[in-house]
Amino acid sequence: MASKMQTLDDMYMDLLKDLYSAEKQLVKALPKMAKAAQSSDLQKAFQEHLRQTEGHVERIDRIFSDLEGSPRGKKCVGMEGLIEEGSELMKENVEPEVLDAGLIAAAQKVEHYEIASYGTARAWAQKLGYNDAARLLQQTLDEESAANEKLTRIAESHVNVEAM
Amino acid sequence: MASKMQTLDDMYMDLLKDLYSAEKQLVKALPKMAKAAQSSDLQKAFQEHLRQTEGHVERIDRIFSDLEGSPRGKKCVGMEGLIEEGSELMKENVEPEVLDAGLIAAAQKVEHYEIASYGTARAWAQKLGYNDAARLLQQTLDEESAANEKLTRIAESHVNVEAM
Repeated sequence: MASKMQTLDDMYMDLLKDLYSAEKQLVKALPKMAKAAQSSDLQKAFQEHLRQTEGHVERIDRIFSDLEGSPRGKKCVGMEGLIEEGSELMKENVEPEVLDAGLIAAAQKVEHYEIASYGTARAWAQKLGYNDAARLLQQTLDEESAANEKLTRIAESHVNVEAM
Repeated sequence: MASKMQTLDDMYMDLLKDLYSAEKQLVKALPKMAKAAQSSDLQKAFQEHLRQTEGHVERIDRIFSDLEGSPRGKKCVGMEGLIEEGSELMKENVEPEVLDAGLIAAAQKVEHYEIASYGTARAWAQKLGYNDAARLLQQTLDEESAANEKLTRIAESHVNVEAM
């Protein structure tokens, strides 16, 4: 009740910490997803997105170094749940041809989660006058959107055909 | 280990059950979000989306009645986490002008979660030859996308200006 009144700046920092935790979790999850993927296209897509994701972590580090703060100390529960869904799938007894369709579905939930969060973070950065941060967040947002579209293309090509 | 091998049909049914639970949870959450919203635009958007969401529940009911199954019995943990984020925000001590920005951010995570899931469900329905279901899922997907865009427009108009 007596807690400090939250401002847009506070919410922005919280959101960035959340995204930092989300990206860190994804850096750990993507190699497992690449290993589980059956098609080489999907393996490569996950490996490529791992390299991008490492860059997304660095961008948030840069934003926080400008703010003279630390992005650490928060656990993104939303991403934890989405990654758990993917892990469950890998433990289940799934037809190999169908596994890729399931991995893509899990990865697209992850991408959409990030697209929503980076879209908000970019908008708030602009409103708060953090123009350099807004530019960095837009770059990541564009890469997340492209990664999501790539997954759709893979799903529509051989993966889903095999899944029949 | 000895569990039945999962097919695309099994994953499709699981995904629809997940979406059914997600929509049911959202039907309960949206009135609270509408009540908490400060701007009348956002209140109306949540109320309108509540009516749409009730329609989305009915569409999944129709799809299951064709499959002679029940959509019940699964809890969507992903949506539970996202709704929890919105609930936390409503309990916190947030500047009233900033609360709407936070509610929109939470709602857009929800919309993106649904867009990802309905996109997958529609694609799988097509692959499995469930053309009526694919059409219904596309209708819902279009409404979720439109709802998300509407939230972006509200965020970009007065809400974010006030949040400054």
